[in-house]
Amino acid sequence: MAVDANGADLGPAEVAAGAAIAAEQGARVILFGPAAELGDPPSGVEIVDAPVSIAKAEDPVSAARSTPTASIVMAARAVAEGRADALVCAGGTGAALAAGTFNIKRDRGIYRPALALPLPVPGHPVTLLDVGASAEARREHLVQFAFMGAALARIVLGVPRPRVGLLSNGEEAARGGPLVVETGIELRERAAAGADGFEFVGNIEGGDLVNGRADVVVTDGLTGNITLKVLEGTSQAILGAIRDVAASSKRGKVGGLLLKGSLGGLRAEIDPETAGGAYLLGLRRLGVVPHGRFSRRGFAQAILRARLGASADIVGQTHAALAAAGALRRSPASAPDARLRR
Amino acid sequence: MAVDANGADLGPAEVAAGAAIAAEQGARVILFGPAAELGDPPSGVEIVDAPVSIAKAEDPVSAARSTPTASIVMAARAVAEGRADALVCAGGTGAALAAGTFNIKRDRGIYRPALALPLPVPGHPVTLLDVGASAEARREHLVQFAFMGAALARIVLGVPRPRVGLLSNGEEAARGGPLVVETGIELRERAAAGADGFEFVGNIEGGDLVNGRADVVVTDGLTGNITLKVLEGTSQAILGAIRDVAASSKRGKVGGLLLKGSLGGLRAEIDPETAGGAYLLGLRRLGVVPHGRFSRRGFAQAILRARLGASADIVGQTHAALAAAGALRRSPASAPDARLRR
Repeated sequence: MAVDANGADLGPAEVAAGAAIAAEQGARVILFGPAAELGDPPSGVEIVDAPVSIAKAEDPVSAARSTPTASIVMAARAVAEGRADALVCAGGTGAALAAGTFNIKRDRGIYRPALALPLPVPGHPVTLLDVGASAEARREHLVQFAFMGAALARIVLGVPRPRVGLLSNGEEAARGGPLVVETGIELRERAAAGADGFEFVGNIEGGDLVNGRADVVVTDGLTGNITLKVLEGTSQAILGAIRDVAASSKRGKVGGLLLKGSLGGLRAEIDPETAGGAYLLGLRRLGVVPHGRFSRRGFAQAILRARLGASADIVGQTHAALAAAGALRRSPASAPDARLRR
Repeated sequence: MAVDANGADLGPAEVAAGAAIAAEQGARVILFGPAAELGDPPSGVEIVDAPVSIAKAEDPVSAARSTPTASIVMAARAVAEGRADALVCAGGTGAALAAGTFNIKRDRGIYRPALALPLPVPGHPVTLLDVGASAEARREHLVQFAFMGAALARIVLGVPRPRVGLLSNGEEAARGGPLVVETGIELRERAAAGADGFEFVGNIEGGDLVNGRADVVVTDGLTGNITLKVLEGTSQAILGAIRDVAASSKRGKVGGLLLKGSLGGLRAEIDPETAGGAYLLGLRRLGVVPHGRFSRRGFAQAILRARLGASADIVGQTHAALAAAGALRRSPASAPDARLRR
């Protein structure tokens, strides 16, 4: 695993600690970051001194192009050149997306990479994609996202036959505007044809994200990013409001303390570190981008999940499923997107 | 006020009770519903027997066209014919939207009606539109939504100079895809020009919906509906999970009971009945659609808010602001949407 140690809120040493945990469980890691801060590597971890970080770059696309010495670029190159099987980036999703796309490149037949995020919904984990790799999407992109998300859920998250839903403003197949309707028609046909390794459950509404109707939810990156931020913001706002209420009176304080123990289980269930972070899908190798605020446990989890995805060949399996369904991009002249332009 | 009494979860009598409360506060109400269930009307309330309901119709558009005896259609006609100043519909947003649009009709120069919902976010109420009148939108629609939402916030919700934001996947003006970017450019220019009665705060992210960055948030109906449902679903899921945790142990039960009193204030603050429901904007008269699950208090509030909007001439004020900004739709030949088609 090629791991970029820059970008973590707790600093590169925390990522190194995560790499050490993953190495104990058998992962082999090349760590790209400021060697001076990373300490002596344990067995299974190799350190490449790469102190330059573009994790916080204002324009990550041009930073990734123009900074060959950036740790994320060096890590992505290691993957592109076969020195590592997957990319893990400890922070800076934009930089990881840009460096990954430029260096590892899209897999053959894939229109666009997507960022897929397993959401830690209590009792009903659900993977949302695209959460922001591209703002806009066309039908054939969303169709590929369905296959990509299903492969992730099956291979890395352990859902045997993922139920895939299409985010819309109503369950009826006619709801959602042309993009959603046309994508739904195509996914329904492909699911009826059989061999996709997922079940298409049709349009789902925003509320269905948290009630277990689907294991994978597909939408464009603009809507997906908004959806994700609304979900996160609402959770924080409600938990914050309850905390404030508990702090505002003696009775409330006692009540909050009594609840605290029982809330531990819920907190573990909605712990975002468990899923390892966001997954960068559609490139020739898997990428995982844990959140910058993660602790060593989350970084270790990201590395182990990346290893699982690489060893089970998520890229090859996604490709094969898309090929079997005839949903790969053809040569530019006959590409479906050329036909679709109006 | 023309009030459709059909569609409420608690039945038409609950709506009649709400009308009675509003009448006590000076509103004059024509109530359309099953007279047999509505009891004797108090002073200020007139009953028109209209037992036919299309509130639960599967296809509200064709139901509204083909059912002239439906209570919502009769209520909308009363408004269209000047017998009432605003429409209030106790349930069935789709039917209200269709009946309102067909009968009351769009205001001159308005491209499309929008559904605006004041969200009861603790400490930071925010009005989101469009929450689902149309799935798709063009730039000129979103620009008008900004004016319409600002007029609602100013006139009916009491925000002196509303801050209007555009929902996107990043705060930078370049984020969000062509529709968001072009709408942002136009709103920024119009806000810089001055006379709009609102401040444009630029792109806001999904998380900003709950943190008070804007009073009015503009997006297309597909994204708006998804956003609303995610927000509602997440709130319910978290409160439900906390309830479950509290019920799962003795300590938790005691803690939950102690917190309950303090949570009352929060519950009042996030009570959706306070805002009266969703607002149907862009027609020649104001419409208000309280949620079907509301109690008499919410229906009374919807009627009183509709009255406030009508007496302060929200439609005329919106029209004047759009005219001053040159953002009204011109005659079909020179309409901006004709120019924009690619």
